[in-house]
Amino acid sequence: MSHFIAEPKQGVPFVSVQAMAKLINTLGIENVLVSLTKTLKHDFARWHEFDKSPRYAAHSPDGVIELMPVSDGKMFSCKYVNGHPKNTFKELQTVAAFGILSDVDSGYPAMISEMCLLTALRTAATSALVATYLAPKNSTTLTLIGNGAQSEFQALAFKAVLGITHIRLYDIDEAASQKAFNNLNNKGLTVTICESVEEAIKGAHIITTCTADKTNATILTNDMIPQGVHINAIGGDCPGKTELDSALLERANVFVEYEPQTRVEGEIQQMSRCFAVTEFHKVINKQHLGRTSEKELTIFDGVGFASEDFSALVYIREQLIKSGEYEILDLITQQGDPRNLFSVLEIPHKDKENAA
Amino acid sequence: MSHFIAEPKQGVPFVSVQAMAKLINTLGIENVLVSLTKTLKHDFARWHEFDKSPRYAAHSPDGVIELMPVSDGKMFSCKYVNGHPKNTFKELQTVAAFGILSDVDSGYPAMISEMCLLTALRTAATSALVATYLAPKNSTTLTLIGNGAQSEFQALAFKAVLGITHIRLYDIDEAASQKAFNNLNNKGLTVTICESVEEAIKGAHIITTCTADKTNATILTNDMIPQGVHINAIGGDCPGKTELDSALLERANVFVEYEPQTRVEGEIQQMSRCFAVTEFHKVINKQHLGRTSEKELTIFDGVGFASEDFSALVYIREQLIKSGEYEILDLITQQGDPRNLFSVLEIPHKDKENAA
Repeated sequence: MSHFIAEPKQGVPFVSVQAMAKLINTLGIENVLVSLTKTLKHDFARWHEFDKSPRYAAHSPDGVIELMPVSDGKMFSCKYVNGHPKNTFKELQTVAAFGILSDVDSGYPAMISEMCLLTALRTAATSALVATYLAPKNSTTLTLIGNGAQSEFQALAFKAVLGITHIRLYDIDEAASQKAFNNLNNKGLTVTICESVEEAIKGAHIITTCTADKTNATILTNDMIPQGVHINAIGGDCPGKTELDSALLERANVFVEYEPQTRVEGEIQQMSRCFAVTEFHKVINKQHLGRTSEKELTIFDGVGFASEDFSALVYIREQLIKSGEYEILDLITQQGDPRNLFSVLEIPHKDKENAA
Repeated sequence: MSHFIAEPKQGVPFVSVQAMAKLINTLGIENVLVSLTKTLKHDFARWHEFDKSPRYAAHSPDGVIELMPVSDGKMFSCKYVNGHPKNTFKELQTVAAFGILSDVDSGYPAMISEMCLLTALRTAATSALVATYLAPKNSTTLTLIGNGAQSEFQALAFKAVLGITHIRLYDIDEAASQKAFNNLNNKGLTVTICESVEEAIKGAHIITTCTADKTNATILTNDMIPQGVHINAIGGDCPGKTELDSALLERANVFVEYEPQTRVEGEIQQMSRCFAVTEFHKVINKQHLGRTSEKELTIFDGVGFASEDFSALVYIREQLIKSGEYEILDLITQQGDPRNLFSVLEIPHKDKENAA
């Protein structure tokens, strides 16, 4: 039962939004991002141990609901996540995610956690991890095209993991850039709001594209981008949604997380099935060189893979173990004789137990 | 937003084990089973409206973890459920399930619920619903082979929905039969513990097989079973697990929930791919006659399908609306500007809100 925090019979440890925010603030967001990057690296290095499948996606006119299960044979994780761009008009989140981590030996849930914040952290940490292998050496300037919910997490991950000092912001909605600027104020970064994509990418070593349109857009065209930069393209993450000019992909050395999923969801959905890409775990495991020269254009076509959520949930579970502070959900029946499920109806009702 | 109980921004309604037990006891378990049967019938009748897929299953040496997603285009549901027969040796449940119901338009979770009790209820209600179409007329005697967690729920569903008066129990472990006997005492049924399968099926109109072995067993052999009975075979529900003699299936008119899933998991995994079966929704929708004579042997090869969990979750949600009593989980971030996720980290932490 070493996979458990509490004994499974005591209930399911639960990490609410408030608890997650408190945990991140207590540890310090940059420390969390650095630690997450290490956990992600550890898990990408043992890529072959994961039972992988493309995510399950239920598409509807306004969005998508996805399930992202994965297992390493000891633990199983699954993230529930939606993507509904029009939710912003209702003042709802475009992404409302939560995750479960469970013990493969017993099948019991070992933790349920919010994953709105955690997904933002793991996406930023994955981007930063990939960039440590693919970005030009001594990168100092990061351009963020699209300044929505992910942008501050990107900026801080690149600062903490790669030593980025300058952030250049661009969004078609200036209010989004101003929001990011305000949030990044006093975080030890030099932040500039730009008025066009062309202006924003001036002097950039790394360019993150993370826009919200659910269409095939061309945020970056081929002629805009000089050789030598690293593009972290994370906004195109579902069928029919891309951000990059196909000519740019042709010129570049393109890296992906899990090829079967990225072929359907990523920038490379524009390309033929034989367009060559490299799965990132091969770079970590030295089966592929990664960036080979300062003149090379590299692209990370990141769509988000289930193993990254697994890594993030495992990391959070470790923090719960260290702190000993967590809520418990009364989610699984606890009668002494497993065959006597019916007895649960006959036990006097007591108040929900909380471990604090 | 009519799909929601609370406004989605207020958090996710949560039904704990204790809350579910209280709800069932308040409404009365037989009333719940009858109502669930009606909801199931309504949803089987609109079978074509559901976006269906076989469940996702992660198998391990000791069990399986499954995800069962389904959507009718308005609501989406997914059940997390394991099956670990050896858990009984650790005093853990063999099945530890929970479910989510969400709103397709926004992707937001509209309810999270325990599904240990709820799965038992929906399985029993599905069995009873199917039997109203397939069991011989005026059935009064139900035999339960395998007296584990599901048995009392079966007995009460068949009593409430079909008017069954006599229950005959058999289990290889007599303690299980004694447990079921004790639980069914004073429930208005005549209950008999039997010492063999042969004794138990004497005079039975309906035979439910629900044993726990994860092997290809032959609980019922061909020679044991007279014509005219209805077999409700619900224990064989994963690859490599069956309960019936293949000769019995050859003789019978066999009904299933969702053929692509049952071919892999059900009794019919023993049979060739061209062995004829009928999906049950066709009987409800009068596209198939169901039982055609008193001499016919009918078999329901029930493995449990995602739409049944959907029906059960929708039913529970309706009860929450009526009662107005439910907990709220702080699972989704609630900042005013969806793009300002980062601000969640800067809001002073307040205690978890509860609506009671």
